[in-house]
Order: sequence, then C-alpha cells, then structure tokens
Amino acid sequence: MSKPSAGEVRLARAWLSRAVEPGRGAIHDLVTAVGPVEAARRLRAGEAPGRAAELAEARRREDLAAEDLAEAGRLGARLVTPEDSEWPDDALRAMEIAFARERSAGGRPAGDGSARRDEQRVELAPPLALWVRGSPRVHEALARAVAVVGSRAATPYGEHVAADVAYGLAGRGWTVVSGGAFGIDGAAHRGALAAGGLTVAVVAGGLREPYPRGHSALFTRIARDGLLVSEWPPDALPQRHRFLVRNRLIAALSAGTVVVEAGVRSGALATGRQALRAGRAVMAVPGPVTSAESAGVHDFLRRCPEVQLVTRAAEVIELVGAIGDDLAPERQAAPTPRDGLEPLARQVLDGLPAAGAVSPDLIAVAAGVPPLDVLRCLPGLQLRGLVEATPAGWALTAAARGSGRDRP
Amino acid sequence: MSKPSAGEVRLARAWLSRAVEPGRGAIHDLVTAVGPVEAARRLRAGEAPGRAAELAEARRREDLAAEDLAEAGRLGARLVTPEDSEWPDDALRAMEIAFARERSAGGRPAGDGSARRDEQRVELAPPLALWVRGSPRVHEALARAVAVVGSRAATPYGEHVAADVAYGLAGRGWTVVSGGAFGIDGAAHRGALAAGGLTVAVVAGGLREPYPRGHSALFTRIARDGLLVSEWPPDALPQRHRFLVRNRLIAALSAGTVVVEAGVRSGALATGRQALRAGRAVMAVPGPVTSAESAGVHDFLRRCPEVQLVTRAAEVIELVGAIGDDLAPERQAAPTPRDGLEPLARQVLDGLPAAGAVSPDLIAVAAGVPPLDVLRCLPGLQLRGLVEATPAGWALTAAARGSGRDRP
Repeated sequence: MSKPSAGEVRLARAWLSRAVEPGRGAIHDLVTAVGPVEAARRLRAGEAPGRAAELAEARRREDLAAEDLAEAGRLGARLVTPEDSEWPDDALRAMEIAFARERSAGGRPAGDGSARRDEQRVELAPPLALWVRGSPRVHEALARAVAVVGSRAATPYGEHVAADVAYGLAGRGWTVVSGGAFGIDGAAHRGALAAGGLTVAVVAGGLREPYPRGHSALFTRIARDGLLVSEWPPDALPQRHRFLVRNRLIAALSAGTVVVEAGVRSGALATGRQALRAGRAVMAVPGPVTSAESAGVHDFLRRCPEVQLVTRAAEVIELVGAIGDDLAPERQAAPTPRDGLEPLARQVLDGLPAAGAVSPDLIAVAAGVPPLDVLRCLPGLQLRGLVEATPAGWALTAAARGSGRDRP
Repeated sequence: MSKPSAGEVRLARAWLSRAVEPGRGAIHDLVTAVGPVEAARRLRAGEAPGRAAELAEARRREDLAAEDLAEAGRLGARLVTPEDSEWPDDALRAMEIAFARERSAGGRPAGDGSARRDEQRVELAPPLALWVRGSPRVHEALARAVAVVGSRAATPYGEHVAADVAYGLAGRGWTVVSGGAFGIDGAAHRGALAAGGLTVAVVAGGLREPYPRGHSALFTRIARDGLLVSEWPPDALPQRHRFLVRNRLIAALSAGTVVVEAGVRSGALATGRQALRAGRAVMAVPGPVTSAESAGVHDFLRRCPEVQLVTRAAEVIELVGAIGDDLAPERQAAPTPRDGLEPLARQVLDGLPAAGAVSPDLIAVAAGVPPLDVLRCLPGLQLRGLVEATPAGWALTAAARGSGRDRP
C-alpha cells in the first residue's frame, strides 16, 4: 500500500463526510487505525469491521466526493481536514481526551439525570473533516473561542444580554461560536460582528443553504468576516438528530460555553451538558425567575455545581482565559464617608443627634459604648470631617448628615 | 444568694436589654455564668469583669426596666425571655452552636472576603430577651420559618418575586421572617399575609414606633396576624449599627434565608452572610443581569458556593424542609410524540420526507442508518402513530409532521 496523495486523502474525507453521520466512534476508530483512504475503501467495499460497516451500509454505494468538493468551491467554501495546517488540533484536544475517557468507561457519559437518553448517546468522536466558508484560518479563529448559545424563542432580554456578552468577548479578542439559529445564537453572532470581532457559526446542515434560511443575510456577513462550519456536505439537510451532533462540536471547539436563555428542554442545555462532557468550562447567565426562557438556565445552575453563574463578558473571560491575566474587575459601590470607619467609631457616630450638639457622655448613652471610647473616637471622626466640636458640644457635620440620608 | 423570683428575672432582662446593645459575647457569657439577676446587679454596681463592665458603663446608672415593661404592656407587647415556655430555643440552637464555634476559633468568622469589617465583627451572641407584639407564641411561630430579605430600593420584579415566594411559603405552613423595611421586606410580609399565613417582622428599633414609620399600617397588620420582634426596649431608635445586629437575628431565627434583590452593598447580603455564619441554609433568587438590584445577588451566588440558587417557594422548602417530605416537583415541558423514542428510531423518523411516501432503502440513505435498522424501527414508529404504510411506501402521519414543526 503506497502512501496516498493529498488529493486522495481529501477525496476520502469528503466521501466519508457524506457516507456516514459524523461523531461515530466506530468510524473514528477505523479512520484512526488505517487512515482515511483505506477506511473509505473498506467501507465502500463492505469490508470494514461490524459496526463501522453497518453505519456505512446505507450510503456506501454512493460517491459524490468530487462533486461535493466542486460544489464547495462554487460556494467559496473548502474542506478542512486533520492533514491541513489550519485544522484546529488544539481546540479539539479536550474532545479527543473526553472521547477516549468515555470509550474506556464503557461509552456512557456521566449524566446529571436530566439529559435525555438520545443526548447521552451522542458520541463525542471528533470530526473527520469540516466544510468551512470564510477567510480566517480555522485553528487561528478557534485559538481563543467561547460559545454563546441559547433559546430560539429568546426574549428581548436574552437577545440583549447575548449580544452584550458576545460584543464584550469579541472586543477583547475572543471568537464567538454559536449555532446560527434564531434568537440567542443570532444575537450572539451579531454582537460579535458589531464589535468587529470574529464569529463562527457551526450549522447542522450543509453550507449551500445554511439553516435557518431566514438568517441568510447574517450567514453572508459571517462568511465574509468570520467562518461558517459544518460537518456535513454542502447539500445536507438540517435533520433534527443532527442538531445534537452539531451541538457537541460547538461545545468542543470552544474553551467555554455560555448558555444565555433556555427553556427546560432547550437544545442549548444539551450543548452545555456536552461541554461538561468535553471537559470545557460551562457558564450560564441568569434571568428573571418569572421568565420561562430562563427556567432551563436556572435548573441547570441548580443541578450542576460545575456550571458557573456569569453576568458579563469579563466574568466569562476570567473563567476561560489564561490564569492571572484575565481577572474580572470587582463590582464596587460608590464610596461613602463612613467607609473604613471602625465599628466602634460608626456606633459613636450613630450616637450623635441629627441636629444640635451634645456632650460625650450623652453620646455614650445614646450609642451604648463606654464613655472613654467615645472620647477616643471623636478626634478621628473630626479629622474625617464627620463631626465638629462646637461651643455647645459635639455635632454632626453636614457631610455626615448627608451620608446618613438613607437610614435614620 | 436565694433563687430570684420570676418577676426579678424579667426585670433584670428588661434592664439588660436597655443597658447593653444586644449580641455582645461578654454580656452573654456573664449572664450565662451567673444568671440575669446577678449579672444585672454586677453591671449596675460596676463589679462585672473587664469587657462586660465597659460595655455597660455608659448606661448602667439608668433603670427604666419597670417603665419599659409597662410601656410594652400599653403597646400590647410583652418581654419574652429564655425562662418563658415560648422562648424559641430550637430556632436559636444553630446560633448558639455557631457562637460557641466562633468563640473557640478566636472570634473571627470565616469570611468570603466581601463582607465589610464591621459586619464580620458583629458577634453572634444569642439574644438576652425579645420584645414581642402579636398573639402567636414565639417558639411555635418560628418552628418552621424562612427569612425573605432584600433591597429597600427594590424593583417591581423583585417585589413581585418576594411576594410570590412568601405567598408560597406561607401557603405551605412556613412562617415568613423579614425586617419590615421598604421594598423586598415589605413585599415578603404582604405575600405571607395574603396567603393567610404567619409573618414575623424583626425590627432594628423599639416597638413603640417600628421603623420605618411609612409601614405603620403594615406593622399593625403584622402585629394582629403575626409577630413584631425587637431586641431593644420600646423607645429605642433604629440606629444604623443596629441593623447589622438585627440582621444576625433574622438569619438566626430562620431555618433558611432567601435573598431576593440586593445591590452590591445591600444589608440583605449581610443577613445572608450571617445566616451562613449561623450554619443556616442560604438561598438567592436571580434576576436580570441588567438590573443593579440583582447585581449583589449574582455576586453572592458567584462567590459563595454554599448559596443555593432558588426560583420559587417549593425549591426553598426542599432546602429547608424535613428530608424527604418536601421535594420540589421537577419542571417539565409538555410531552411530544417523539418522547421516549430510541435515538435510532428518531434518526429513521428524520429520514422520512415531509410529504409523500418512500421505500425503506431511501429512508436508510436519507437517515444514514443501516437498512436493516430501518426495517426494525418502522413497526415501532407505526405503533406510536408516527409513520404509516401506504401502497407507495412509508410516510409520516399528520401527528408526526405536527410534532416536527419547530425544526425542518
């Protein structure tokens, strides 16, 4: 068996991408064992081992590999394979590891009990090839990537937040990966584009007419400034079962997955769970508890302690970014004149009347602190401009009265 | 030293409640060591040990105990002491344990770094006595109690959720404890009252004019149907430092504390942290990430893994209720005809065209599954009413087409 040419390899991968549904461990193992050209030959000839042969049986007599490559060319797309320098090896490493771990554990992912059975049976086998449209090189686009996914039936709140998070991520040099769907996915792509950043849409059908058609203008923009990615040949239909398989890829290609809105049964939660399987960071943005579109997110946060609550891009980056250089700034309230006061000094301050001046002894009685402590605290309070010594005794300054407005 | 009479004990406790601010470990230890009557005598005489003497120094010469008890009587209130059968021993047990633990650990609670210093220095010493207005017996009202607290500057969303959670708790026989403040506290009390349940307002000043005055009508209702509780004598002012001390009592008296809305600096978060100190369940209700009034809640959930996200009363009860009998029902979506289908059967179903009938072989090609598997799955799909055999081949039923509407 002589070493196959690059063209033969490409044709074999194109053939495989049509002959078998992606993500199947048996096919992955065969290709790993004998290479794509020999794997394709055996499957075509009906000579492959048991399960792999079964998976390829229905379509093995069909060969549209050259046509698919030509069609991709007409669409401005290309087939990216593991043999290419732009193959996202680094991004897929976590998936390879998780796949190997689940194989050795018997093929069943650890579930939290809420995943549906078919979702748990989606195998995490890495892609055999990717159909790609867009100029950025795939491995570079995915070097720092976060998925932002959520409900198609999003609320204005959810779309606002998804766009805002995506805008913040893209503005800090992170690629935003999503599924191109209506609702949250679309808002995430648009937010990234608005920031002039990179965005990648991973779709569940072919690139000729990416699903949903209503997003064709968005897909055109994504293909111009970012990437459209699919595991299926250009004319493949977005069959329903393909969404779960596609979701595993969104999760695996991204360092972290952020779920913005999701009903209790949303596919976005499946993406989140698959990101957990793939050992990726999983985050969720809460919303009003009165909103059905946040109910799935809240359930997810309640059930899975690994899922982190996030509210903005900086917090996402803190979780997926390089340790140390991506810490989110702490939220802080405006400082008040009382900040930094010792508790005792606060108590003394509270012992002064709102108006008028009193003796230290009366302050001690009102505050319930030892008179000596009152005498010790007053000079410090005076230095801070909170109290003043008057001929009639000690009094609050205007500044101290102002800072106490919200409470008596 | 003869055993003091019940009347002497009551007078001593009334005197202590005015002479020293509540929550102080040194006073608690003295009372525990020598009893309230002897403790009051020593403090009054300036014979108490160091720190206790200091704490009582400012007010030890004043004795309004009889007047305070008479004033309470005029207000329809009473002093409840550890010697009374209605003293909430059970509710306060967690506080006693936490107080002892912090004492032995050197007096400093474990912080998450976000608590302000003065908050951390609030000692968890149990109350010496409670001024109470309302007919329910205190220990009974607090046998099953949850605190619902939050921002005074609440949003309509927050007030709605607080009232809803309180309504749900009260309707299931749980007492709702809060601080009587504007905003979330008021909404929680009202929600409990609306359900015909018990509610307890723990206030930071005396019961003659509970703070804030704007809630006087609400306080009247609470006193009629529930309880007003204070550690201070009837005429005490709601001084600012007293709120933190009061918050520790709200947290300690309740099996769990639910924070509904809180800015990054809200006192409600202090209550939550004190509930953590007291070993109580702490919960938080998320909100829109665009709302400043939920920012503190989200920070709290992010920083403290012990804090549980909750969205409704049933989930609160699951966390604080007796194990086993208070499980929240799982949120479920409406079932669809595809529920329970094997993944393979779903894939076969996806291989049928939206309209028209086809052969099993064509289904196999479209679905990418082995033809034998197609033949195996079709009878099951037919039994479920999802496909039908027609003279032209196999076709989707109307029901199956209907259930696929949301995706191609």
